[in-house]
Amino acid sequence: MTENNKRARRKFNNDEECPIRNVVAQIGDKWSMLILFALVDGADRFNALKSRILGISQRMLTQTLRDLEREGYVKRTVFPEVPARVEYELTAMGRGIVKPLYQLVSWAGEHHDDIKNSRIAYDKMTQL
Amino acid sequence: MTENNKRARRKFNNDEECPIRNVVAQIGDKWSMLILFALVDGADRFNALKSRILGISQRMLTQTLRDLEREGYVKRTVFPEVPARVEYELTAMGRGIVKPLYQLVSWAGEHHDDIKNSRIAYDKMTQL
Repeated sequence: MTENNKRARRKFNNDEECPIRNVVAQIGDKWSMLILFALVDGADRFNALKSRILGISQRMLTQTLRDLEREGYVKRTVFPEVPARVEYELTAMGRGIVKPLYQLVSWAGEHHDDIKNSRIAYDKMTQL
Repeated sequence: MTENNKRARRKFNNDEECPIRNVVAQIGDKWSMLILFALVDGADRFNALKSRILGISQRMLTQTLRDLEREGYVKRTVFPEVPARVEYELTAMGRGIVKPLYQLVSWAGEHHDDIKNSRIAYDKMTQL
């Protein structure tokens, strides 16, 4: 184990300072990722997002947008029109996290079949 | 939106075929990540893992190792000794996913302070 690894492990093991527990757990949520990926194309309104992200409920979209705004990934802008127009867009930080997230999702997509096959094999083996 | 993006979105929106919901949700779990990172250094026994991953309970380690084995990231080997020695190690797929996972965690580590500051600012703003 290298010194860097040791430092990383100490960091990961400390709850308050652990980026996994403190950052990735939030962003690893499926709805968070789907919203971030949906916003890559540009700013969008609530109802447009809702129709683009199949299966998301109004309540879940509202809550996840709030969480993403609180984390600093999404900016919410209210335009003073009647009725008020509200748009959501990625911040610089939101655009920043999309890249490593996308690499992870790409990996997952490429290995999706392997994982499904592994699950089937495991379930067969443990049912013996 | 490019054709590739559209394809990706359709894929993400279909639950059964969605790598986010089907793969990343499992691996995005903090304990899964901590175990995978702990195994990067090589095979290890249950009790050694338990002492290296601070805060993990026996039950959580048992369950998460089983999940990781089922997904195909971890291989469990029982050595015919008395008492039986059981070791866990990364499979080729486990070593494969560690890289994009690590990039995500590195990004999270680098931006941890920004995210914490964003949360504080958001909470102040919404308490007005």
